[in-house]
Amino acid sequence: MSGANPLVDDRDVEFLLYEVHDAQALASLPKFAEHDRETFDLFVASARRLARETLWPAYRPMDEAPPKLADGRVRAHASMHEIWTRMVELGVLSASRPEAVGGLSLPLLVSTAADVYLMAANLSAFGYVGLTRGAAHLIEAFGDQTTREQFMVPMLEGRWTGTMALTEPQAGSSLADVTTKARQLDDGSYRICGAKIFISAADHGITDNVVNMTLARLDGAPAGTKGISLFAVPQRRVTAEGLVDNDVRVAGAIHKIGWRGLPSLALNFGERGDCHGWLVGRQHEGLSCMFQMMNEARIMIGLNGVATASVAYHESLAYARQRPQGRAIGERDPTQPMVPITQHADVRRMLLRQKTIVEGGLSLVMQAARWADIAEAAPEAHVRTRAAALLDFITPMAKSFPAERGYDANVLALQIHGGYGYSSEYLVEAWLRDQKLNSIHEGTTGIQALDLLGRKTLKDGGRAFALLTEEIAATVQDAKSAGVATRLGQAMQDATEIAGALVKDLGAQAKKDDLPGALAHASDFLDLMSTVVVAWQWLRQAAAAQRALAIGRRPAEFYGAKLAAAAHFFDAELPRVGMLAHRCRHDRSFVELDPSWL
Amino acid sequence: MSGANPLVDDRDVEFLLYEVHDAQALASLPKFAEHDRETFDLFVASARRLARETLWPAYRPMDEAPPKLADGRVRAHASMHEIWTRMVELGVLSASRPEAVGGLSLPLLVSTAADVYLMAANLSAFGYVGLTRGAAHLIEAFGDQTTREQFMVPMLEGRWTGTMALTEPQAGSSLADVTTKARQLDDGSYRICGAKIFISAADHGITDNVVNMTLARLDGAPAGTKGISLFAVPQRRVTAEGLVDNDVRVAGAIHKIGWRGLPSLALNFGERGDCHGWLVGRQHEGLSCMFQMMNEARIMIGLNGVATASVAYHESLAYARQRPQGRAIGERDPTQPMVPITQHADVRRMLLRQKTIVEGGLSLVMQAARWADIAEAAPEAHVRTRAAALLDFITPMAKSFPAERGYDANVLALQIHGGYGYSSEYLVEAWLRDQKLNSIHEGTTGIQALDLLGRKTLKDGGRAFALLTEEIAATVQDAKSAGVATRLGQAMQDATEIAGALVKDLGAQAKKDDLPGALAHASDFLDLMSTVVVAWQWLRQAAAAQRALAIGRRPAEFYGAKLAAAAHFFDAELPRVGMLAHRCRHDRSFVELDPSWL
Repeated sequence: MSGANPLVDDRDVEFLLYEVHDAQALASLPKFAEHDRETFDLFVASARRLARETLWPAYRPMDEAPPKLADGRVRAHASMHEIWTRMVELGVLSASRPEAVGGLSLPLLVSTAADVYLMAANLSAFGYVGLTRGAAHLIEAFGDQTTREQFMVPMLEGRWTGTMALTEPQAGSSLADVTTKARQLDDGSYRICGAKIFISAADHGITDNVVNMTLARLDGAPAGTKGISLFAVPQRRVTAEGLVDNDVRVAGAIHKIGWRGLPSLALNFGERGDCHGWLVGRQHEGLSCMFQMMNEARIMIGLNGVATASVAYHESLAYARQRPQGRAIGERDPTQPMVPITQHADVRRMLLRQKTIVEGGLSLVMQAARWADIAEAAPEAHVRTRAAALLDFITPMAKSFPAERGYDANVLALQIHGGYGYSSEYLVEAWLRDQKLNSIHEGTTGIQALDLLGRKTLKDGGRAFALLTEEIAATVQDAKSAGVATRLGQAMQDATEIAGALVKDLGAQAKKDDLPGALAHASDFLDLMSTVVVAWQWLRQAAAAQRALAIGRRPAEFYGAKLAAAAHFFDAELPRVGMLAHRCRHDRSFVELDPSWL
Repeated sequence: MSGANPLVDDRDVEFLLYEVHDAQALASLPKFAEHDRETFDLFVASARRLARETLWPAYRPMDEAPPKLADGRVRAHASMHEIWTRMVELGVLSASRPEAVGGLSLPLLVSTAADVYLMAANLSAFGYVGLTRGAAHLIEAFGDQTTREQFMVPMLEGRWTGTMALTEPQAGSSLADVTTKARQLDDGSYRICGAKIFISAADHGITDNVVNMTLARLDGAPAGTKGISLFAVPQRRVTAEGLVDNDVRVAGAIHKIGWRGLPSLALNFGERGDCHGWLVGRQHEGLSCMFQMMNEARIMIGLNGVATASVAYHESLAYARQRPQGRAIGERDPTQPMVPITQHADVRRMLLRQKTIVEGGLSLVMQAARWADIAEAAPEAHVRTRAAALLDFITPMAKSFPAERGYDANVLALQIHGGYGYSSEYLVEAWLRDQKLNSIHEGTTGIQALDLLGRKTLKDGGRAFALLTEEIAATVQDAKSAGVATRLGQAMQDATEIAGALVKDLGAQAKKDDLPGALAHASDFLDLMSTVVVAWQWLRQAAAAQRALAIGRRPAEFYGAKLAAAAHFFDAELPRVGMLAHRCRHDRSFVELDPSWL
């Protein structure tokens, strides 16, 4: 059964790309001028094939045999060598980067549609790509010519890989407390000394070298986030004699419960005093460099969440279609044959809920990717600025909705399998393990929530939120003219108004010197806003489906199911908005609770 | 840190037993007349000590080395031998059974308070007790003198253990489709032939023998549930030459993701035609015998869920208290020391939510246990009948709320641990795995939902629901007179009215020949009712806490935290009732969806 898992629904990807997010319009922008639907489709089709034929068969073997630390080294699963080579050949490392750096100049929207297959097939295998991409992009954006040639080029060519080395054992999410040290040397490089933890893919043996994009503090740097600089710290450094050991020691391997094909390591830099790093960006501006890349990384995590929920959804759908059990309610004749469990309403509920999360989440991530494309490639400055503001605002939702609700979807996929789902002979439990990381890495859900409500809503004075409501209002109009059931548009409008009133009141509270009080329900606010934006994406999909049906486009079942999913999200999920606003306004319990009472 | 985990809060157990559920009043019933608070406390304290000193240290070793099938046999972890002996010595197998069968005649309420520690310490270890208890109780209730002597006595003495052998590979939850065969033999026993799956503890080597309480179909029995009989089918049968093999072969071991200390097996009965079973109860009435025991088993599963959430809650609380990270919102001086993460509102939210689930769930299960005690031991028939009806009605909630919301609590415990929670070096991920089974075994959440809405609400004409609303109304009055904030009582009343109106409307829908439509949202209805009854339990706790504070009982922090938890449940969770009722009334999406469209 697993063999036939499509990973992601091809028809849905086509629908989202062309009928909802109008990928073709992007081809009219100068940056993407060499492309058209044909080249978009070719790239997505190639990634899909690679995902199904090469990454997917390796998923279970990689999950079952995670890399171990032995003699100070970690070696990735043997199948990663071919997978890496094939992914590099396909061009996934720089698909959305310009040709100047060897990229394919594809819209991020299109590379998103390709990535989701690769992630759904094998999250860990794709992890090596994601990290290398992020590291290379950091150097592309902030590095000088030397660091670009020395580090970015080998990474984009797939000869080396990259990592993000931010977290330290004593600091966790609190990057202000990073203590890794850097001291400038005469040759222009820096001596690095410190310890990092949870560094994915910091050793693997797939390529010759690994470049750790490392946050560290220069001697005499200010305390806090304003004294952090960014360095490229390779595992081995280039000398006249070739690559030599750069004193980056693997101090331990974390026994992760998921993503088991991608080693997560503790690193010690400079135990022998011989670890060199190269500054990327300006001194003390490391964290702001990191943050400029963060949207990209967070949207990628959102896509990980969508992909992991998608593959499990398709697995449970296939299972439910062929698993006979019980009979229809009211059928009292036990000699009648059993029916497939899709005939039971509660199983359909669990399947449809998964569908709304997977396809709503994918649409949301694509929306973010499209705004990233506009923010980078639109000719008019005001259009770029607007898209950038919307992207910035929506990022915490695009990261957290797939992580949190995607996890719910994975739980439902397991539940549909009954007792079999509880066994490691089926794969649904593995995706549950994989998914759990997405609410933790690249900023926990709690961190995303503070980012959304604190920085991007209250500090922003609600301007980005107002832009979003304009987008939503336009969709409400569009859905109306497309003939979507009016109760959906009305519910969308009501929910947006509830959110708007809450934003206003929390803003007033923050201004009255109660910022901690205003931020206390940040997680509920994130949940609320996520529900609003995913409902919005479903309204967009409903409008597109209604239009397609009106002109007789096929298959009608595909569009009918889209309308059913939209209705489910509006009738079952969107009412959570009112409830969450109630929580934000009225629940003072944990806010005022003395922690010592617990 | 784990070493100091209390598993369950002692003060909370005392509070629930004596200040909320009035365990002392039970001692005035003739059945429990030999007991008083002192003997109750002694038993609970002994179980608590055994849990902490013996079961808990074995938890991780048992999780790490699950039993394997080798040479047709399965052997439990070596530490189970001592654990089993000690549990038998304590009397847990028959604590709540009468002295006539060697029991301690303790109220189920009190044995619940003891069991929760043992379960929280080591769910798998307790599993052997739970199964043996259930099997012995089945024979006590329905067996004749011979089967009692032959099977029940050795089980209650801890010399043999028991299992429940219901599920078959082709039938799953659909017991109507059980095909295992039974043919009567001249000696009064039956020849059994068939296959069962997911049979926990069917082989282990801890005791000499295992008794499988097996559902099978006599030759010529009617199809469906009315043709099923119950048999005791031992692994080895008693002959003049002692115990001989009874042709019950272990055909496979399930690789479960949790409960890894308790083997789950596939069994083949009668491959050599030499498997004997002994009828328990009357022919063709096996399923109704099973169902009479089901409440007990399901409440035990609920307690499993509470226990698993409890141990993880305490682990995450201890972690949060000692883990420094970041600073208070508004603190801009990075040279200030970091604060423990309990200082962050969102962490307190996650902790308080866990507390409401753990302590609300425990109170709910205790409520069910108390009704079971009254139903069995009250002198007046009408009191027994009323308690039995309430117990029957509340059972699906007592089983499912801890399973479903307990899982949410386990997710939060992991989230609080951040990246460390994602590693198997910490225990929070193990409890997440353990908890997942509770929404599946002993009737999935979907099955519980149909039981609650179909059989116990609509078919019952809402009579049991009306009894429950009487109980809730009494608590609302009591909370008022105790001085609990009036908004809680009002919210309780409103939520109960929403539920009542929904019951009425669904009843009308069912009568209008739309039973499938009325039952379509059974899972949402179960969720709704679970929220109502747990809010009710929190209102009871709030009233008790308010009274304790009024008379200056200590520690005030304990009661203060109870009030905060009650407020949290009312302000954050109870509003879900309105939302869920909206779903039940308005969401037709999956109900009408053609399964082939998915």
